[in-house]
Amino acid sequence: MSEIKIPLRDMRFAMRELFDWDQHYATLGYEDASPDVVDAILDEGAKFCENVLAPLNQIGDQQGCTWNDGEVKTPDGFKEAYQQFVEAGWPSLAHNVDHGGQGLPPSLGTILSEMVGTSNWSWGMYPGLSHGAMNTLEAHGTDEQKHTYLTKLVEGTWTGTMCLTEPHCGTDLGILRSKAEPNDDGSYSITGTKIFISAGEHDMAENIVHIVLARLPDAPEGTKGISLFIVPKFLPNADGSVGERNGVACGSLEHKMGIHGNATAVLNFDGAKGFLIGPPNKGLNCMFTFMNTARLGTALQGVAHAEAGFQKSLAYAKDRLQMRSLSGPKNPEGPADPIIVHPDVRRMLLTQKAFSEGGRMLVLLCAQQVDRSQSGSEEERKDADDLLAFLTPIAKAFLTETGYESANLGMQCFGGHGYIAEWGMEQNVRDARISTIYEGTTGIQALDLLGRKVLMSQGELLRKFTKIVHKFCQAEVDNEALAPYVARLQELNKEWGELTMNVGVKAMENPDEVGAASVDYLMYSGYAVQAYLWALSAKVANEKIAAGSAEEDFYRAKLATARFFFDRILPRTATHASAMQSGAENLMSLDAEHFVF
Amino acid sequence: MSEIKIPLRDMRFAMRELFDWDQHYATLGYEDASPDVVDAILDEGAKFCENVLAPLNQIGDQQGCTWNDGEVKTPDGFKEAYQQFVEAGWPSLAHNVDHGGQGLPPSLGTILSEMVGTSNWSWGMYPGLSHGAMNTLEAHGTDEQKHTYLTKLVEGTWTGTMCLTEPHCGTDLGILRSKAEPNDDGSYSITGTKIFISAGEHDMAENIVHIVLARLPDAPEGTKGISLFIVPKFLPNADGSVGERNGVACGSLEHKMGIHGNATAVLNFDGAKGFLIGPPNKGLNCMFTFMNTARLGTALQGVAHAEAGFQKSLAYAKDRLQMRSLSGPKNPEGPADPIIVHPDVRRMLLTQKAFSEGGRMLVLLCAQQVDRSQSGSEEERKDADDLLAFLTPIAKAFLTETGYESANLGMQCFGGHGYIAEWGMEQNVRDARISTIYEGTTGIQALDLLGRKVLMSQGELLRKFTKIVHKFCQAEVDNEALAPYVARLQELNKEWGELTMNVGVKAMENPDEVGAASVDYLMYSGYAVQAYLWALSAKVANEKIAAGSAEEDFYRAKLATARFFFDRILPRTATHASAMQSGAENLMSLDAEHFVF
Repeated sequence: MSEIKIPLRDMRFAMRELFDWDQHYATLGYEDASPDVVDAILDEGAKFCENVLAPLNQIGDQQGCTWNDGEVKTPDGFKEAYQQFVEAGWPSLAHNVDHGGQGLPPSLGTILSEMVGTSNWSWGMYPGLSHGAMNTLEAHGTDEQKHTYLTKLVEGTWTGTMCLTEPHCGTDLGILRSKAEPNDDGSYSITGTKIFISAGEHDMAENIVHIVLARLPDAPEGTKGISLFIVPKFLPNADGSVGERNGVACGSLEHKMGIHGNATAVLNFDGAKGFLIGPPNKGLNCMFTFMNTARLGTALQGVAHAEAGFQKSLAYAKDRLQMRSLSGPKNPEGPADPIIVHPDVRRMLLTQKAFSEGGRMLVLLCAQQVDRSQSGSEEERKDADDLLAFLTPIAKAFLTETGYESANLGMQCFGGHGYIAEWGMEQNVRDARISTIYEGTTGIQALDLLGRKVLMSQGELLRKFTKIVHKFCQAEVDNEALAPYVARLQELNKEWGELTMNVGVKAMENPDEVGAASVDYLMYSGYAVQAYLWALSAKVANEKIAAGSAEEDFYRAKLATARFFFDRILPRTATHASAMQSGAENLMSLDAEHFVF
Repeated sequence: MSEIKIPLRDMRFAMRELFDWDQHYATLGYEDASPDVVDAILDEGAKFCENVLAPLNQIGDQQGCTWNDGEVKTPDGFKEAYQQFVEAGWPSLAHNVDHGGQGLPPSLGTILSEMVGTSNWSWGMYPGLSHGAMNTLEAHGTDEQKHTYLTKLVEGTWTGTMCLTEPHCGTDLGILRSKAEPNDDGSYSITGTKIFISAGEHDMAENIVHIVLARLPDAPEGTKGISLFIVPKFLPNADGSVGERNGVACGSLEHKMGIHGNATAVLNFDGAKGFLIGPPNKGLNCMFTFMNTARLGTALQGVAHAEAGFQKSLAYAKDRLQMRSLSGPKNPEGPADPIIVHPDVRRMLLTQKAFSEGGRMLVLLCAQQVDRSQSGSEEERKDADDLLAFLTPIAKAFLTETGYESANLGMQCFGGHGYIAEWGMEQNVRDARISTIYEGTTGIQALDLLGRKVLMSQGELLRKFTKIVHKFCQAEVDNEALAPYVARLQELNKEWGELTMNVGVKAMENPDEVGAASVDYLMYSGYAVQAYLWALSAKVANEKIAAGSAEEDFYRAKLATARFFFDRILPRTATHASAMQSGAENLMSLDAEHFVF
C-alpha cells in the first residue's frame, strides 16, 4: 500500500493564492495566525498525519472496534495516537482562548481536519465529533457548563458525541421519543435508545460528553418539542475530575460496511443524569449549530477519500505495466507501458484530481465564511452566513457524491487488485460510502438547498453567489486566456436562474415539484460552483505563469485540470437541467402498489 | 431482511411479449422448449432460488470461504444446495444432448442464471464458471476430451474454472508467463501462478476442471504464443472416476470487498499434468468462446444486483415512516408517511426499476442472439453473431455500471440502515462492485466496442443495430402514443452515427482519440439501446391495454417506467456526447510527472 502525502502545495494554493488567507486573517484580527504560524501548523500537522495516523488506517479497518460488556476497545494504536494528538495540543487549535483554546481561526481547524481525514477518516471522527459538541456548548452552554465540559473537550481529555437518531427516526427528528424527566436538583433523567452514535463509546479518552435530543414531559409534539441535554458518560466531580458512572450504556456496536475503526454505538439511556442546554423545546434550533459544523466536516470526507484514492491510483498507474499505448510504445524497453499512458486511465485520474482539488477549494471557501461569520463586522457576518447557508448543503452532498465517485474510480484504476483488501482501495470505497448518508442524506441536503435556502429566500441566496460569479466574469471580460471559461460561466449563471424560476413556478402549483427537482438541482449547483472555482484557479495560474513563476509546471497542471473540468465534467449540467425540468409527474404517477407485479 | 421474489411476470413479459420466444424456439427447432416446459422451468427454478439459494446469501457473506492447507470450505449450506441443484438436473439444462445435456436453448440457461444470480450471486458463480468451461470444451475439445470432461461438467458432478490472470497481468494476457512443457505421453507439464481464480478451489464438487492459458516452449511472444490446456484437479481414471491428485494447489484465498461466498483462489501449478485443447498458440482465440459467455454472464450480474436492491428498497420505502409528503399527509393516521411518498425516493426506486427491467431486456435480447447463432440458418447465424459482437460489450459494461448505481441507490433508500450489514443492502453494493472489473473492465469493454467492433467494421456493426431501431421507427411512424419516443429514437440514431464518424475521423490522425472517447461512447450506446427497448415495451404495453388486457396495471407501470426512462435517464446521453467530442488533448496534455506536486 502506497503512502499518503498531505497535499500541502495544493492546500497553500487554495488558502493563499486563491483566497488570500494571510490577508483574510489579518483583516479579521487573527493576529496569531501569521504566515509563519500557519506554515508551522501545516508542516507539523502533515507530519503527524502521515507518520502516525495514516499507518493506522488499514489496521483500523481490519481490527475494527470490539464490544465487551458495554466497554469498547478501539483498534491497536488508536488510543496512543490520540494521546499524542492531545499532547501536541491539536484539539484546542481553533477554539476560544477563554476555555483553553489557542484562538486560531476555525478555517485552520478545517485544514487540520482535512489532513487528519485524508490519513485516517475513522480515527478522525473521534476528535471530529468533539468539535460539534464544543461549538454547541460555546454557543448555547451556561458559563458553568462551559467551565465543566468545554474546557475538557478543548483540552481533548474528553470527547463528545451527537445523539439524535433513534431506531424509528433519523431524518424525521420530530417523532423522536427519548424522554427527559426533571429532577429536584435541576438536572433531568434521560431515558431512551439512540442508535448510529459515532464515537459513542471508546477507550481513547477518560470521559465522553453526549449531546442528546430528548423531550420534556410537557413538550409539544413534533420538532417544536425537542430539547437538548448534556449527558456525560461519567458525572464530573466538583473539582472537574471524572466521578460516578452515569446511566448511559453502550448496548452494542453496529456491523457496518466501512469506517470500522470508528465505534458506531447503540446507546441506552436509562434514567441517565442530563443537563438542559439552551432553552426548553428549542433543542433542534440549538442543534443546527452542531449540524452545520458536522455537515462541513462531512463535506471534507468527500475530499479526503477523493484525495486518498487519487494518490494511490496515480502511483499505481505509473507503476503497473499493462498493454501498449495505442499511439505507440511509451516504455519500449519494458514488457508493456505504464497504464497512465492510456487515455481512459487518465480520464479516471483527472476526474479524481478535479474532484479532490475542486472539493478542497469549495470546503476552504466555506471555511473562510465560517471565520467571517464569527469574527467579521456585522455586515460581513450576515454576508458570510448567507453564503454558508447556500454553500453548506452543496458542499456536503456534492462533495460526498463526487468523493464516492472518485473513490470508485481510484479502485477501478487498480483493476482486479482494487477489489482485494490488501491495496486499501476497496476500504476507501467502503469508508466513503457513508458520507452521502449521515449528517443528512443527499436527498435531505437537496431539499434544504432548493426548498429552504433558495426558494424560501425568493432566490436571494442563489443570487448572492451568482453575483460573485458575475463580478468575476465582468472583471475578466478582456482576459483572452479565460474567454471560454467566462463565456461558459455566464451561460451557467443565466441557466441556473432560469431553472430556479422554472421549479419555483411549478412548486407554487404542486409542492412535490421541489422534491422532484431537488437532487438534480443540487448536483447542477455543485458543478456550477466548481466551474467558478476552476475558472478562478485558471486565472491565478495564468497570472503566475505570466509573472515568471519558478513553479510553472504546477500552474500548467492547474490549467490542464481546469480545462479537463470544463470539457469533460461540466457537461453533466445538461443532464441535470433536463431531468429537473421534466417535472414531478413522471415520478408521482405510478401507484406505490404497482412498482412490482 | 426482506425476501427475494423472482420477477417471473417481468421475465415472461420480456421473453414472450417483447421477443416472442415461443415462436423463436419453434422456428429454431427447439421442440422441447414448449411453452409448458418453459413455464415449468420458470416456476421450478424460481422456487429453488427463492427457497434454497436466497436464504444462503447473507450467510455466504458473513462466513466467507475458509482456506486450510490448500483445502477450501465453502459457507454452510452451499455444498448441500449444490447437491440439490445437481440432483434436479439444472446444470445440464441448456447443454448438448450428446454429452448428457437436456438440449434446451441457451437462452433458457440465461433465464436460470438470472434467477440464481439474483438470489445469491456468489453461489451462482460455482456453476456459472462451469458453463464457460463447457462451452470451450464443446467448441474446441476432442471427442475424448468431451467424453471425459464435458459429461461430468454437464452432469454438474465436476465444476470448471477459467485460469487467465497472473500477478503481473490481467488485461494484458500477451505477457503471461505460465509454461507448458510437453511430456512423452502427449500431455504437458504446466507450471506457473494464476490469481483471481473464481471458484478455483472448493468442497462442492468432486473434481474441478481448470481451463488454463500457458505458453509452449517454442511459442512466439505476445498473444500469438498462448495455448489452452485442460488441467483437472484430480486426474480422471480410465473409467471416468476421480483418480490421482494433480500438481495444482490453492495457495491462498483473496480477501475481497465482496462476493465472499465465492472462493477467489491463488492457484499454483507445479508441473501439473495438462492437456492441450484447440490448436497450439491459438489459445486466446479459443478463450474468446469462454469470454463471451462470461461477459454475458457478468452483464447479468448488473441486472441481479439492480433487481435485488430494488425489491428490498421498495419494500423498505413502503414500510418506513419518515416525514410528511410535501403535498400533504398521505398516512394521516400514522406518525409519518411511508417514504415512498417522497419524490426523490421515487426517483431512486424508479431508476433501479428502469435499470433492472431494462437490463433484463438487453440480456434477453443478447441471449436470443446466442440461440440464433447456434441453431439458426447460416444467414441468421451471421446476423446474430454480428449483433452479439456489438451488444456484448455494451451489455457487460453498461449493465454492470448501472447495476452498481442501482445497488447504491437501493442502499441510499435505507438511509443509515443501509450502511449496516443486517439489511443486506451494503452486501449488495460490495458484491456488485466487482462486476465492472472482472471479465474485462468497463474501459476494456469500451475499447472493444468502439475500436474493435464499431470502427474496425467501418461502422457496419453499429448500423446493423440502428437499422433495427430505424425500422421500428418507420413502422410506428403513425402511432401517436409513441410519437415522442419515436422522435427521440430518430434523433439518437442520427447523433450516434455522427458521434461515431467524429471519433473515427479523429482517430485516423491520433489513435488515442479512441481511448479518449470510448467509455463515454459505450455509455451513450447503452442508453441508446435501452431507449429502443423501452420504446418497444411501451408499444407492446399500449397494444395490450388497447386490447383490453386484464393486467392493465402491469402495462400502465411499463408505460410509466418507459416515460421515466426517457424523461430522467436518457438525458445522460447529452453529457456523454459532449465529453466524447471534447477530444484526447484534454486527457493527454498533462505530463505523468505533473499530476501531483
